[in-house]
Amino acid sequence: MSIDVIVLAAGQGSRMKSTLPKVMHPLAGQPLLRHVLNSAAQLQDARLHLVVGHGGDQLVDYIQSETISAQPIQIAWQREQLGTGHAVAQALPACAKDSVVLILYGDVPLTPSSLLNSMVSVAQQGDLALLTVNLADPAGYGRILRSPVGDVVAIVEHKDATDAQKAIAEVNTGIMAVKAEALADWLPRLSANNAQGEYYLTDIIAMAAEEGVRIRALQPQAEEEVQGVNTRSQLAALERWYQMRQAQALMAAGVSLADPQRFDLRGSLKHEIDISIDINCVFEGEVILEEGVVIGPNCLIRNSHIGAYTRIEANSVIEGAQVGAQATIGPFARLRPGTDLATQTRIGNFVEVKKSVIGRGSKVNHLSYIGDAQIGSEVNIGAGTITCNYDGVNKSLTEIEDGAFIGSNTALVAPVKVGANATVGAGSTLNKAVEAGQLAVARAKQRNLDNWTRPTKREK
Amino acid sequence: MSIDVIVLAAGQGSRMKSTLPKVMHPLAGQPLLRHVLNSAAQLQDARLHLVVGHGGDQLVDYIQSETISAQPIQIAWQREQLGTGHAVAQALPACAKDSVVLILYGDVPLTPSSLLNSMVSVAQQGDLALLTVNLADPAGYGRILRSPVGDVVAIVEHKDATDAQKAIAEVNTGIMAVKAEALADWLPRLSANNAQGEYYLTDIIAMAAEEGVRIRALQPQAEEEVQGVNTRSQLAALERWYQMRQAQALMAAGVSLADPQRFDLRGSLKHEIDISIDINCVFEGEVILEEGVVIGPNCLIRNSHIGAYTRIEANSVIEGAQVGAQATIGPFARLRPGTDLATQTRIGNFVEVKKSVIGRGSKVNHLSYIGDAQIGSEVNIGAGTITCNYDGVNKSLTEIEDGAFIGSNTALVAPVKVGANATVGAGSTLNKAVEAGQLAVARAKQRNLDNWTRPTKREK
Amino acid sequence: MSIDVIVLAAGQGSRMKSTLPKVMHPLAGQPLLRHVLNSAAQLQDARLHLVVGHGGDQLVDYIQSETISAQPIQIAWQREQLGTGHAVAQALPACAKDSVVLILYGDVPLTPSSLLNSMVSVAQQGDLALLTVNLADPAGYGRILRSPVGDVVAIVEHKDATDAQKAIAEVNTGIMAVKAEALADWLPRLSANNAQGEYYLTDIIAMAAEEGVRIRALQPQAEEEVQGVNTRSQLAALERWYQMRQAQALMAAGVSLADPQRFDLRGSLKHEIDISIDINCVFEGEVILEEGVVIGPNCLIRNSHIGAYTRIEANSVIEGAQVGAQATIGPFARLRPGTDLATQTRIGNFVEVKKSVIGRGSKVNHLSYIGDAQIGSEVNIGAGTITCNYDGVNKSLTEIEDGAFIGSNTALVAPVKVGANATVGAGSTLNKAVEAGQLAVARAKQRNLDNWTRPTKREK
Repeated sequence: MSIDVIVLAAGQGSRMKSTLPKVMHPLAGQPLLRHVLNSAAQLQDARLHLVVGHGGDQLVDYIQSETISAQPIQIAWQREQLGTGHAVAQALPACAKDSVVLILYGDVPLTPSSLLNSMVSVAQQGDLALLTVNLADPAGYGRILRSPVGDVVAIVEHKDATDAQKAIAEVNTGIMAVKAEALADWLPRLSANNAQGEYYLTDIIAMAAEEGVRIRALQPQAEEEVQGVNTRSQLAALERWYQMRQAQALMAAGVSLADPQRFDLRGSLKHEIDISIDINCVFEGEVILEEGVVIGPNCLIRNSHIGAYTRIEANSVIEGAQVGAQATIGPFARLRPGTDLATQTRIGNFVEVKKSVIGRGSKVNHLSYIGDAQIGSEVNIGAGTITCNYDGVNKSLTEIEDGAFIGSNTALVAPVKVGANATVGAGSTLNKAVEAGQLAVARAKQRNLDNWTRPTKREK
Repeated sequence: MSIDVIVLAAGQGSRMKSTLPKVMHPLAGQPLLRHVLNSAAQLQDARLHLVVGHGGDQLVDYIQSETISAQPIQIAWQREQLGTGHAVAQALPACAKDSVVLILYGDVPLTPSSLLNSMVSVAQQGDLALLTVNLADPAGYGRILRSPVGDVVAIVEHKDATDAQKAIAEVNTGIMAVKAEALADWLPRLSANNAQGEYYLTDIIAMAAEEGVRIRALQPQAEEEVQGVNTRSQLAALERWYQMRQAQALMAAGVSLADPQRFDLRGSLKHEIDISIDINCVFEGEVILEEGVVIGPNCLIRNSHIGAYTRIEANSVIEGAQVGAQATIGPFARLRPGTDLATQTRIGNFVEVKKSVIGRGSKVNHLSYIGDAQIGSEVNIGAGTITCNYDGVNKSLTEIEDGAFIGSNTALVAPVKVGANATVGAGSTLNKAVEAGQLAVARAKQRNLDNWTRPTKREK
Repeated sequence: MSIDVIVLAAGQGSRMKSTLPKVMHPLAGQPLLRHVLNSAAQLQDARLHLVVGHGGDQLVDYIQSETISAQPIQIAWQREQLGTGHAVAQALPACAKDSVVLILYGDVPLTPSSLLNSMVSVAQQGDLALLTVNLADPAGYGRILRSPVGDVVAIVEHKDATDAQKAIAEVNTGIMAVKAEALADWLPRLSANNAQGEYYLTDIIAMAAEEGVRIRALQPQAEEEVQGVNTRSQLAALERWYQMRQAQALMAAGVSLADPQRFDLRGSLKHEIDISIDINCVFEGEVILEEGVVIGPNCLIRNSHIGAYTRIEANSVIEGAQVGAQATIGPFARLRPGTDLATQTRIGNFVEVKKSVIGRGSKVNHLSYIGDAQIGSEVNIGAGTITCNYDGVNKSLTEIEDGAFIGSNTALVAPVKVGANATVGAGSTLNKAVEAGQLAVARAKQRNLDNWTRPTKREK
């Protein structure tokens, strides 16, 4: 039996106080909506439908710019905000008649796909699967009434509940799965005869009960898995919960975190064992850490691969870089996209590397800018070395061969090449090639003047 | 009826283990005392009195160096530490006879002025207003006994309380408001006949009850609003509570915080919506963030104005700067006072800017020091550029006009001017003006020597 | 009566998912095992024994490379993992016959030596001292059964406990002290006739009870003092508890912490009063902070001594440095080992100092590398100054005498000396000595070319 997943994302989210649609606000670096779609996309052969309204164009643009599911996501527009039942009705015509329909919410990001899968299985057996959760403070939510055998028999809204019913901790999340044909039967019979004048999807529970459809409740492992986001404060709370869950999973898998409450992963972290990550580090995009990598405090690492036993020292920022094994990077290093460092390289403080390949054992220890360079192995780049890679319109290449020694405070005016084992004197500005083994110097003669009178304080 | 506020600040605070008077320790960047005075100063037409003793000279210096209230703050010295009643008595002679007197404590920083205002209103009606609070653990505090209609009838000290009274959670905070004439009547009748030999202000409650003055209790919205500070640990706890409250208010108003527990604001943050602030940022003084500003992790921003949609990248330190819209700053940027950056400017890593104006679209991307400079629009400053603005006694100006290109590793010896669309060759030290459209080079000729013998290892 | 302490450290710790033996994982910068050995070494005249097995070679190497106790630590190998009773039996032959034996665990790091001392005292009186703890959730642990007078009469394993016994919160920690002769009697009588086929040390409690030896239970002040580490998650939790305890102790002693939950001390911090430490700082090794030191956010300080009223600004990394009083360091400063800064020195942003002495009042404010230098007092080092201290094989000294002024973007090719009050022009590369009072310049003449044609965009 096929699966159609309808994700409701038409609401305004005015409590976010934002020009961005609520479901586009990021959690762990990705839009809330993306988390929902990713979970749904893991369901075998599921077709995804997105109901959009407020800010719908931004959602459609996002959906079309990303590859989320095997099949394209169907868009259904809900032009008027007439309630969840009405929203589902906009997408239902595009669902297969013999499908099971799973209804999700774009602002409830963290429901695991395993739980969604269980719901679909229940619905495939002809029952209605309803996701419920026990809350410490259920005030305001619809309470779940169960039969003696445990099936759901009704949902009582808070305002209609007796005191005994108000004591029930189990509440409705609104997430449900049911056969498309049943939905097609029930949705047109929803009434907007209520205070808000909206068609509530929840009202189909009563219809199902009336028709003798069995309603089976499933529950998440944690409340946060069904938590919706209405405010930036709720978003921040859910972010912290998600980060802590990621931190615990990493620790269980062989990563040491100095403080799991000061760890942020916004993307994926592939790793081997015996990784050590100090306080306050942020990882974004796809990061790979090989065995024994040590990362100091306050580092930001994005879309990079760090080789075995390499140390990243404090306060380094690394993006789009390949770093070999046993390298030492930082503190205060900045690696930019296209950096490719071989084994046992050393990048020191206040050094920026961009779009450059640096060979085995080479060192750039202090206050340098290396951009668009091809550097061999066992090269020593002195402090204050600058590759002048840009003339205002074009970028040019600097080549430095194995074993070369570049003196401090040197400017290398690209395109330029320094041969193997060549030496460049400190303070030189190089604009011609240096052959292998040569010494190049471009330096003015020093003159010492006696009786020099220091400047005096200007009148203001 | 006029208002006199008496703030008690004569205590030693020996548990702080500090040479600084306790009330001068900072919370959110301002002395505890300042928070109290700021709240008091919001009361319409209130006269402020400060009772000082230990470290009083430091307090008086501070009060006189700052503008806190419309009228000058009256100082009363309490030369001997004879209790709170004695302290109030030192300030009372300077209060108006027909006033309401509000009594506050310099080490209880976070009582909101709205609550103080309510207390004053109660006292203006002839009642005594007493601030009380319910504590989970009231042990040690004076319990509040109330009449059946809810008025306070007495305070029982912990040591004198019956078991039933010890079960009362409501305790006295010592903050009260009452007519000056009543105080003038009661204070001389206080007795120091107790273990400490001190005159306790609290004892006037019994006098008021005896004389049939109605005692009305008011309560704060949170315990922390009446929390006093006796230790650095208590100070840190109150700081975190205050910071979290600020964080929640900002999130409610359209600011996203990656982690509200890693956010510090020590001053004021004016902002538009859709601000995004990453982990561990600190804001000090007066900071303004326009719409869409994005701030990366571990930034420190002080007394600065950041324009719309500008990005501040990781690990940047910004102070006293104006940054235009759509600029990109950092990572590892340092903006110092007097920095004024136009729209779409770009300040990159390991760049320091001080007292400089930089025009629209200009870039200083790497490892540079720009001080005392006037830079036009669409200028490109190469890596490693230094403005030599200081000769040991005087600071001089560097002027760079629109469209100029400054090659890398250039020293600009100020005063010096580079004309529009001029070019400066990499590695130059410039000490003469460059006219518009010229190329300036100050660079020694490169010499390559064959058969260079590398240095050898010295004997140690 | 002499003391022998047996520390069990033969287990594998497979849940750590690590190639490092579990007891070698660091807590607050030192191996778990080191914390245990340090506590044991504080017992007067105690001999230490370490039972090793899995990863034993690494433990032995570590023990031998460090000075932990006055006498060498005895190693006993447990080649087969046959239980705690068997482990103790491996070390017992090396214990004195008339000793008291204290049994500790290498993965229970935080038991205070005062508590160990109390246990030894109990055992010296002929009783068996057993360390127990009350747990909120005792499930899984052996419950302590006590006699009406409070002595322990038995330990009931969880699986054998009645419901009433399961309600007992007090559990066995396994830490005990008893006379060696009793152990020598009991250990050979342990049986491995259980599910694991192991010899359990705990079984001697029953033997002691049977023989009428009094079993006295002692308890820690906090559960964490007897917490064992089996996973990286438990390790992180214990690290945070330990850090918070350190933070509280520092605050009580006159140190202000902006956020005690964002403070890490991995070593020792000696300090005077009125220290102020901003968020997210890390201290490692032996750090000394004199009165009034102020440390900004995100600093890392290792093995350094900071003088009175010195300010360390944001994002600085300091290691192996001596900093005088009233200095200002950072933001973004990097001090490396061998840095020795006098009073009122100033090290600014993007400056690295290594193995250099800098005199009173001297300034290195911007973007410089100072390595292997001897700098006098009142020297001004301009922005972008580089000491060229390394020729590829040798390091050489740069000497700068009092009052010298080094212009910006200068390279000092060591060995080189600049005399007192000498001046070096900006942009110079210096390789000869400058005498006192001289002006040295090594700079090419500036040429300005008219009608310069800018490069044009290359075809790709």
